[in-house]
Amino acid sequence: MHVGRQTWLFKNKPVIISTGTVVGPDEGEGPLADTFDYVHEDLDMQEKSWEKAERKLLEQATQAAVQKSTIQENQINYFVGGDLMNQIISNTFAARKMGLPYIGVFGACSTSMESLAIASLLVDTGNAEYVMAGTCSHNCTAEKQFRYPTEYGSQKPPYAQFTVTGAGAAIVAATGDGPRVIAATIGKIMDFGLTDPFNMGAAMAPAAVDTIQAHLADLNRTPSDYDLIVTGDLASVGLPIARDLFKENGLSLEGTVFNDCGLMVFDLETQAVQAGGSGCGCSAVVTYGHILQRMQKGELKRVMIAATGALLSPLSYQQGESIPCIAHAVTLEMEG
Amino acid sequence: MHVGRQTWLFKNKPVIISTGTVVGPDEGEGPLADTFDYVHEDLDMQEKSWEKAERKLLEQATQAAVQKSTIQENQINYFVGGDLMNQIISNTFAARKMGLPYIGVFGACSTSMESLAIASLLVDTGNAEYVMAGTCSHNCTAEKQFRYPTEYGSQKPPYAQFTVTGAGAAIVAATGDGPRVIAATIGKIMDFGLTDPFNMGAAMAPAAVDTIQAHLADLNRTPSDYDLIVTGDLASVGLPIARDLFKENGLSLEGTVFNDCGLMVFDLETQAVQAGGSGCGCSAVVTYGHILQRMQKGELKRVMIAATGALLSPLSYQQGESIPCIAHAVTLEMEG
Repeated sequence: MHVGRQTWLFKNKPVIISTGTVVGPDEGEGPLADTFDYVHEDLDMQEKSWEKAERKLLEQATQAAVQKSTIQENQINYFVGGDLMNQIISNTFAARKMGLPYIGVFGACSTSMESLAIASLLVDTGNAEYVMAGTCSHNCTAEKQFRYPTEYGSQKPPYAQFTVTGAGAAIVAATGDGPRVIAATIGKIMDFGLTDPFNMGAAMAPAAVDTIQAHLADLNRTPSDYDLIVTGDLASVGLPIARDLFKENGLSLEGTVFNDCGLMVFDLETQAVQAGGSGCGCSAVVTYGHILQRMQKGELKRVMIAATGALLSPLSYQQGESIPCIAHAVTLEMEG
Repeated sequence: MHVGRQTWLFKNKPVIISTGTVVGPDEGEGPLADTFDYVHEDLDMQEKSWEKAERKLLEQATQAAVQKSTIQENQINYFVGGDLMNQIISNTFAARKMGLPYIGVFGACSTSMESLAIASLLVDTGNAEYVMAGTCSHNCTAEKQFRYPTEYGSQKPPYAQFTVTGAGAAIVAATGDGPRVIAATIGKIMDFGLTDPFNMGAAMAPAAVDTIQAHLADLNRTPSDYDLIVTGDLASVGLPIARDLFKENGLSLEGTVFNDCGLMVFDLETQAVQAGGSGCGCSAVVTYGHILQRMQKGELKRVMIAATGALLSPLSYQQGESIPCIAHAVTLEMEG
């Protein structure tokens, strides 16, 4: 059901019946280490290229989600996924392996919630019984593609973010046990003219705020209706900006925990991750691991995840364009 | 409504109330010249880069679609789009200009029907009133990104395809006059191990056949139920392969015109386009121009468009991967 300007309210409340999360070594040394299904000890993962390693992460995450569920892979109607790689090759090759009808999407780091929103829509409207949503990122593939050749070892400003090496996948179903997907808001592009591709958090903060406010308004809710609202991934620079923007807009965050997946996945005191995590995989592994596990335990009843994406390309940056940003938000609820 | 394995049957039959098509000079010299809303005389389009020109094409196509309709741009709930550029920047920047909630998708040249399928789903299920679907390609941006620097003027094998410079946009609505979107089939990835990125037609033919057969089976139809079945874009190498595959599979194409957007958009006898057209814009401008106009005139009642995509990236090719291909099919009907 369409509510307000840009929100889908899922009247049948599709269920996330299973998830899979696979990460790299840095994430395995972070505070959420115990929440992942599998932690790789190195960045190569016995593959010949980082791109093949990234794809392996996603394949393992989708396999874990199937294995932890009560269904077979061939019962899944569609795979919805995307990633940061040019032509989203990680998801395409993972989809080839699965052999499922495939809906490729792209929202940079917001792909995690874009794919979950579309998967939930398909199930909610009866257009599918089971849909897998998945996304992934790899620190070395992102560095290589978006920044400098990794071997340069170029220095970074402290406000830069550190791309998470990880993949998350979720199986959405019409019935079953687990956290339910209540609503999704598709974001608009926000661009305040920032052009520094290292400063993603600041560029993305207005998009996160715009989508969260639209989501709340469309659902007629306030932040205090939520146990947790997380962005992904504003990190230590962007999150305070988002807080300030909420304050300016008169929106009180009192009574709600407001956090960011990029701050949750790493320990910024002890890990060399600059301002915190980023990448498609960041909000995916934090949501499909830590957050859903807390919901399953009854610690969180209602959570909003607003995944943010910086939709630039190296070419758009080189041609002097500013950074268009977007955020897509999903509300999850645990009953009982 | 979900029917068969991978098909959405739209019970409310969303209507394409308006379209916009804008092309470059080569397409303007082709047999469909008169069917486009606007033909540019050069490839630069008064822009400083080909990428900015590609974006302009899409912006003009979306504007034309709005202008030819009875609605205002701000009545549109969502823009669904994607293109061949890394991080689909053409659509992202066009979406920034429109200010609409934006669902970025990627299916290479199949993006035209992927975006139309999702737009139609949103309208059919009541999750939106008006949705714009759009896509675009530009010969020079595609050459530069996927092949060689354009200035090399490198030669091509005769089986290579020529990327269409063009953009197409369609507004899908719950009610109104125009061709109706009846059903959509989301394709699976087909990969028979071909590795020559110049030979896209041969690589994509099995995906087109697989999706067309799934679409017919899920809807319980035969090719003779259609006035026209078009692929986009198999061109002169891929289309005969698809014909042979249908024959091998025992599917008769008698009584149906089976054609390809890449063959329709250019005159292969007089234009230097090798095996024919390709690119996201190819099936979009042929469908949203020529085909819909023929439907409006009553010349065609039921048409299936199966847009094909080669989901490789230059990097996946360099790393020795074969070419994963996909096709998404949509059936359109004109009543009366």
